[in-house]
Amino acid sequence: MRLPTARLIEIADLAGTFLFAAEGAMAAIRGDLDFFGVMVLSFATAVGGGMMRDVLLGATPPAALRDWRYGAIAFAAGVATFVLYSRAGAIPDWLIVSLDAAGLALFAVAGTEKALSHGMHPFIAVLLGTITGVGGGTIRDVLLVQVPVVLRADIYATAAMAGAVVMVCGRALRWPAPLAAGLGGIVCFGLRMLAVWQHWSLPHASAP
Amino acid sequence: MRLPTARLIEIADLAGTFLFAAEGAMAAIRGDLDFFGVMVLSFATAVGGGMMRDVLLGATPPAALRDWRYGAIAFAAGVATFVLYSRAGAIPDWLIVSLDAAGLALFAVAGTEKALSHGMHPFIAVLLGTITGVGGGTIRDVLLVQVPVVLRADIYATAAMAGAVVMVCGRALRWPAPLAAGLGGIVCFGLRMLAVWQHWSLPHASAP
Amino acid sequence: MRLPTARLIEIADLAGTFLFAAEGAMAAIRGDLDFFGVMVLSFATAVGGGMMRDVLLGATPPAALRDWRYGAIAFAAGVATFVLYSRAGAIPDWLIVSLDAAGLALFAVAGTEKALSHGMHPFIAVLLGTITGVGGGTIRDVLLVQVPVVLRADIYATAAMAGAVVMVCGRALRWPAPLAAGLGGIVCFGLRMLAVWQHWSLPHASAP
Repeated sequence: MRLPTARLIEIADLAGTFLFAAEGAMAAIRGDLDFFGVMVLSFATAVGGGMMRDVLLGATPPAALRDWRYGAIAFAAGVATFVLYSRAGAIPDWLIVSLDAAGLALFAVAGTEKALSHGMHPFIAVLLGTITGVGGGTIRDVLLVQVPVVLRADIYATAAMAGAVVMVCGRALRWPAPLAAGLGGIVCFGLRMLAVWQHWSLPHASAP
Repeated sequence: MRLPTARLIEIADLAGTFLFAAEGAMAAIRGDLDFFGVMVLSFATAVGGGMMRDVLLGATPPAALRDWRYGAIAFAAGVATFVLYSRAGAIPDWLIVSLDAAGLALFAVAGTEKALSHGMHPFIAVLLGTITGVGGGTIRDVLLVQVPVVLRADIYATAAMAGAVVMVCGRALRWPAPLAAGLGGIVCFGLRMLAVWQHWSLPHASAP
Repeated sequence: MRLPTARLIEIADLAGTFLFAAEGAMAAIRGDLDFFGVMVLSFATAVGGGMMRDVLLGATPPAALRDWRYGAIAFAAGVATFVLYSRAGAIPDWLIVSLDAAGLALFAVAGTEKALSHGMHPFIAVLLGTITGVGGGTIRDVLLVQVPVVLRADIYATAAMAGAVVMVCGRALRWPAPLAAGLGGIVCFGLRMLAVWQHWSLPHASAP
């Protein structure tokens, strides 16, 4: 199962890179940044989570710097978003939320898988999968001086963590890697979309 | 002295993790974040400084990811704070300041000791001890979009650095590790508490 | 060419460290931080970009922690700025912009060279050179809770990237290292100064 697993991480990572880069570009355009600012945010949003994961794993240089395709995809998504933004008409919110949830699911799955394949404890693999999913968006929000969506949004990091947990359990039960990853991704994506649609949210602490 | 020193770092690190996680949770609750946001800030505040230290030392994966107890303690402290916050009555400021000063002292000592045991130059060990002490709170404040306490607070990083200096000097004078660490921690804690109590502050540059 | 190249990185790095530390100190003084806050920002601005580069390259501990001169230079520049700030009369804007552009050029060149000497792909070396140039200022701005200059300023990261590209092309054409580095630095510095002087800016995306 070596090869398919590595291939799986790669495909999920590259697809997530495209989606998160496009989202970072949109956030930059809405913040009225210039062309280069849009490129910086595309790149940081797309590869930030994976870079955090790889630096923490000690797998340096990170995949995003060892493989030129990550940067190329991120910049291509940034350029495409920059050019098409004005022509596309107002982009509906549901599309942005869906793309983001898909990116979150892909990165959570890829990050968890990579942590497991580096021999990390399942509990740590869940943490690293979650960090991979939410890291890029956190960097994007910090650079735009906003409280990160991961701290504000209903069931966001929770969804990433749920997907990672499903995946870790699946691997513990010796499911094939693609099945565990697929189910984990579906749980993450579905939970996030349901939460947005149903306005689910987690409890807040009551004041003393 | 191998074993006691390693044990010392570990105990100081775990105790600091609990205190900083509780403090991160309180900051998150005051910022009206939901349950998961409270967990994220507990974890980031508690292990952020140590992770920075370990990544900079090249000791990856960081201790906080190699040992599940760090994450478990951080989340336990976060949950306990979340549940007890409303029942505890208003938490007095002096308690928060004291817990924070204790966490700062524990982390500054643990970070300096770890840097020294990795063979770093004493001057660099002081820097890494200070980073370990103030790193988690800095990440917490950046995520909450506030100027970090380390840049605002009177004698904060200064206290961490003073503790680290005492410790490095003690080790140079061949004091036993627990004595050097204990004195360093007391100096850091005492200096920070005195500064808050006496409203000590460092000079500001005068305007031209 | 081993020795001259290593020496080149070192000199550019140390000179850039001094300039960026002075600039970080000025930003801190303007933000009314106390003496230690000024020291923290001097250090973070000066060594932040190089630390990011080294951590991403897996060259840990970073140069700034292996060599005490980086920290010493950063703190010396911070102290000098703190002491002289009030006596210097209002520091003219053009001087600050020039120092910053010089620091940007030195770091972009040093970062690109180091990435190439670690065997990175030229495309990645350009990215790492740019990150080295803009990383410290980004950390400074995030700590001061401002949208980073790299996202706002006209032709800033663009200039760093242009210098890195010139350098990578020069090395590909087998120019001597000092020539490639010199030309890269001049292009970066010149482009940034021209952009500020002529109010050049990059296009923004048009609204839908």
